[in-house]
Amino acid sequence: MASPLTLADFGEDAVVARLGALLPPMAASVLTGPGDDCAVVENGPSDTLTLLKADSVVEGVHFVAEEKMQRVGWKALCRAISDIAAMGGRPLHALVALATPAETSWQRVADLYAGLRRAAEAFQVSIVGGETCHTKGPLVCSVFLTGSVPADYCVRRSGARPGDLLLVTGRLGGSLRSGRHLDFSPRLEEGQWLARRGCVHAMMDLSDGVAADAPRMAKASHCGLSIDLNAIPRHESCGIPQALGDGEDFELLMAVAPSAIGSLLHDWQEAFPKLPLSVIGRLTEAREGMQPSEIFKTRGYDHFQHS
Amino acid sequence: MASPLTLADFGEDAVVARLGALLPPMAASVLTGPGDDCAVVENGPSDTLTLLKADSVVEGVHFVAEEKMQRVGWKALCRAISDIAAMGGRPLHALVALATPAETSWQRVADLYAGLRRAAEAFQVSIVGGETCHTKGPLVCSVFLTGSVPADYCVRRSGARPGDLLLVTGRLGGSLRSGRHLDFSPRLEEGQWLARRGCVHAMMDLSDGVAADAPRMAKASHCGLSIDLNAIPRHESCGIPQALGDGEDFELLMAVAPSAIGSLLHDWQEAFPKLPLSVIGRLTEAREGMQPSEIFKTRGYDHFQHS
Repeated sequence: MASPLTLADFGEDAVVARLGALLPPMAASVLTGPGDDCAVVENGPSDTLTLLKADSVVEGVHFVAEEKMQRVGWKALCRAISDIAAMGGRPLHALVALATPAETSWQRVADLYAGLRRAAEAFQVSIVGGETCHTKGPLVCSVFLTGSVPADYCVRRSGARPGDLLLVTGRLGGSLRSGRHLDFSPRLEEGQWLARRGCVHAMMDLSDGVAADAPRMAKASHCGLSIDLNAIPRHESCGIPQALGDGEDFELLMAVAPSAIGSLLHDWQEAFPKLPLSVIGRLTEAREGMQPSEIFKTRGYDHFQHS
Repeated sequence: MASPLTLADFGEDAVVARLGALLPPMAASVLTGPGDDCAVVENGPSDTLTLLKADSVVEGVHFVAEEKMQRVGWKALCRAISDIAAMGGRPLHALVALATPAETSWQRVADLYAGLRRAAEAFQVSIVGGETCHTKGPLVCSVFLTGSVPADYCVRRSGARPGDLLLVTGRLGGSLRSGRHLDFSPRLEEGQWLARRGCVHAMMDLSDGVAADAPRMAKASHCGLSIDLNAIPRHESCGIPQALGDGEDFELLMAVAPSAIGSLLHDWQEAFPKLPLSVIGRLTEAREGMQPSEIFKTRGYDHFQHS
């Protein structure tokens, strides 16, 4: 008899797609459900939309057991802030759900909270509650974050059009090796600035690497994709495979109308002189050139399939 | 050298209180932070308040590994709905954060989602997203739920006054043994009905048992507490200790102005003829009678201290 199929047989994207298909119909207030950086829901008659995000860090997966817990707390909240940033929003209220063994030292949990606090203060988030329960396994810290965005400036990952240029902020690769994945700054101000430019048609944050994330944007936008591998901005001592596949960059990936690229790059340079904004490729017609799934030999990080 | 203090040395309430003290100052939009059934935040100029709740179920703690996962999914969402009910609100949008081993069978996760779906449909909740990641330990499913409540009808656990009568819905005890903890119905309609009576000064749901939860209400309201143990409505074959301490009842506990008790019980009987509403005690001046911590020999369920 065949073994039952496991999550590892499917991989992360297929698991997410299959789970999405199991969900009940959504209320009319839900403008964007699963599959984007955040869910988007209407907020009464207001012209501000509400963003909702859940994200977890797991001991042994997102950090090693010996890691400084202050850094883990920072990462736990900043991951979710990065998703709010990718929609052009600002974060508001967070809840923290912590599962940890009863024999966990108080200091370990206090350090985790110190990191959460530091991130909350840095990005004006109110941690309004949560819950703490015990588990017999590794620590799991899930963060739930709300945000808001003016309806006119909410940028989804599905809005890219054939011909749009593909850009990234910052430099990619080596995040885990260098420890940057624990002290990165979510591109909050940059995301709001970009979302207010009408020329940014789609945006998402890079959590699993360009190799996994760019095809997600192309697929959500019903486009194909062409990447200039040599144009990818890399961190020191990172090759192209690392820049493509390491993941945990938490930079912004976006699709921009080609007619606007000159003024966008000019104004960006004035607004954020220290942070590169680089053109790395373009969106194509879906049938043109390479299909997203065939583009890269280097895959990004997949939560259920590991080599 | 003394061992470092662990969460088990403090117990759940002390952990929650200590973590609350570590949080950064909250924005003015936060009306109620940690310590109530839900956080309460303002929703722009609207006279409707937003409720925010996080709650988790952990394999080996809230359910055994062999349990039917549909029932676990039902419980995971209904626990959070019960907290929205306890504020007088209605649930709106949920996110699900799931951590589970990569070798988990697809069917196990699909069954969990089938249970979440059934609860979402029963109580008109939209599951708008979430995330799934892997862990090397037991399954942890955290649910984040938003809700709304008219500002005039938001009932906190801190509003009880000395002289108020203490009431509970339904019958208590034996929830784990009977399996009711996996298929209970959150008292959503009842909570909204009660919150609209001006005489209900405080309300909370019973998750850890009257022995743990009633003193929490008294403490939050700066009151003392007197309970008539013989008046506690019990499930069949449950003694007083089980009714007090088993927990996971998910009934509503409330403080009611004594002058209104006659009409409340009369109208309740007409509205919910099948569900008992019982007076089990009263709130006192804080210095009067027994202090909350001395009331019960039977403690309710504590997440970090177990006998």
